[in-house]
Amino acid sequence: MGELSLIDALQTTLGVRSQRVVRWIGDDAAVVRARPWAIVSVDTMIDGTHFRLGEGASPADAGHRALAGALSDLAAMGAEAGEAYMALVVPRGLGEPALLELFDAAETLAERTGVTIAGGDIASGPALSLSVTVVGWADEQEALVGRDGAQPGDLVGVTGSLGGSAAGLAVLDGRATGPAELVRRHLRPEPRLREGLGLAAAGATAMIDLSDGLAEDAAHVGRRSGAQLEIDPSHLPLEAGVAGVAAQLGVEATALALGGGEDYELCVCVPPRRRGEAEAAAGAAGLTWVGEVRAGSPGAGFGAASDARALRGFEHPI
Amino acid sequence: MGELSLIDALQTTLGVRSQRVVRWIGDDAAVVRARPWAIVSVDTMIDGTHFRLGEGASPADAGHRALAGALSDLAAMGAEAGEAYMALVVPRGLGEPALLELFDAAETLAERTGVTIAGGDIASGPALSLSVTVVGWADEQEALVGRDGAQPGDLVGVTGSLGGSAAGLAVLDGRATGPAELVRRHLRPEPRLREGLGLAAAGATAMIDLSDGLAEDAAHVGRRSGAQLEIDPSHLPLEAGVAGVAAQLGVEATALALGGGEDYELCVCVPPRRRGEAEAAAGAAGLTWVGEVRAGSPGAGFGAASDARALRGFEHPI
Repeated sequence: MGELSLIDALQTTLGVRSQRVVRWIGDDAAVVRARPWAIVSVDTMIDGTHFRLGEGASPADAGHRALAGALSDLAAMGAEAGEAYMALVVPRGLGEPALLELFDAAETLAERTGVTIAGGDIASGPALSLSVTVVGWADEQEALVGRDGAQPGDLVGVTGSLGGSAAGLAVLDGRATGPAELVRRHLRPEPRLREGLGLAAAGATAMIDLSDGLAEDAAHVGRRSGAQLEIDPSHLPLEAGVAGVAAQLGVEATALALGGGEDYELCVCVPPRRRGEAEAAAGAAGLTWVGEVRAGSPGAGFGAASDARALRGFEHPI
Repeated sequence: MGELSLIDALQTTLGVRSQRVVRWIGDDAAVVRARPWAIVSVDTMIDGTHFRLGEGASPADAGHRALAGALSDLAAMGAEAGEAYMALVVPRGLGEPALLELFDAAETLAERTGVTIAGGDIASGPALSLSVTVVGWADEQEALVGRDGAQPGDLVGVTGSLGGSAAGLAVLDGRATGPAELVRRHLRPEPRLREGLGLAAAGATAMIDLSDGLAEDAAHVGRRSGAQLEIDPSHLPLEAGVAGVAAQLGVEATALALGGGEDYELCVCVPPRRRGEAEAAAGAAGLTWVGEVRAGSPGAGFGAASDARALRGFEHPI
């Protein structure tokens, strides 16, 4: 595969949908009209670690998922997504049609989220790997939400539903049977960009996207905020079908929601007085209150219904 | 290796040297105060393709080289370097000390070039790979230089000296003997950031960094500019020791300079009337005039002294 012919093909696949981008693929670098604050995140997904090509996951799934995972970080900051840059390592066996399929799926997601794929790099290596850098923009620093602002008394909410990705992976791997929607949930997560922007505007004090699983991610927020996010597992919004898969796996459904990870929902802390605004901001995705921020030793705590042993069953890639 | 303990270690290794960066490692994304134009590039280097760990190249070399290669793209745009984001794929055998060595070398280069390593990602995979995204900044779009502005009559210049990286690789591989400086030239290239800024201000009409080799890179500029960069190989500034290595390899020294690649010098097109300004802008690195831009079929042409067959000896990673 020649880099040049692929670049030519990509230029027809990828659209510049922003007047911000004045130079892009084919130059040494992209040139983008900035807004006052740039929000930047990088996320890497690798065949064999984050997905398994040929065992249920297609190149298109990989392209979508890598971009979605990166955009999810911008959602968690309350940033408006701008551009994405995709650095690929491609094994010799993966031809140009597979790569175009991959970029096509990424471009479909990019289009839906108003993102321009403005550049990237393609190199040869032992396994397909995608490092996606996303750049978001904001006009005011105060509009952005970090992990460090959670205050004792804040409510802890999660968007959408949880456990679907872990359950979908089990179905994909043949460890359980379940609805195809769960598999789709695993392979094609949707970054909560609109919800993130809305929640930031609705007074979120801290926010994180659920890539490691609520247990770990809530602990991250707690550590950075110097507080404890106490989660009540009985309140978790389980994705439809998760309970059935969990039963087949011999674990509690809440364990899939707490420890499974990769749901790419948002976990948000909100002062109680802004509860209604936050619920409205989450819109159709829905917002479920699952706990409260408490003063005290940083981290995340779990109520009586949690099952620590079940959690240990989930190894998560670093 | 735990991601968290590594992140802790990195926070002490990496310095924030810019008041621009208000959030970074440890949050979902970095938050950076923007200037009017953002210049973004991504570059990936992989063990086995771009370097060989354990066969002469250390983790520190890999860290330096990956960042240098990415920054070189900003140099070629005449952008001021701002932040870098390092996405690593790490094989199981590579421990935390090796990774800290890698980041330490990258940080040393970052410090020297005024760059903040403001984030990244670390994931497990089959081979060490580094995808480095760099963000540069400019106040005026007109201050930046693309590949597409070369005009017939412009002089074509290159900074520094050529062929050193290819010759150094041959020495590193044991295919030839030569000065240690050549090996260093291969493993520790220096991005020409200051020179790129200066050449842009001195009226450069097109610029590219020499990663593929002058033959290919000049052709890129020609294609994008709709002109031809005619290079006279007898004028190429050869790095000291390159001729001796070329003789041992049985190729012409100019072939190493034209086709070897990875010298990370700048190739620049300048109107003749600004010749003196451009030479001054290149400063101690030096600027050698190696050809001229001609109207006609886009690409790069080579004078009588070129040896097309020798060029074919160099396979370059895509």
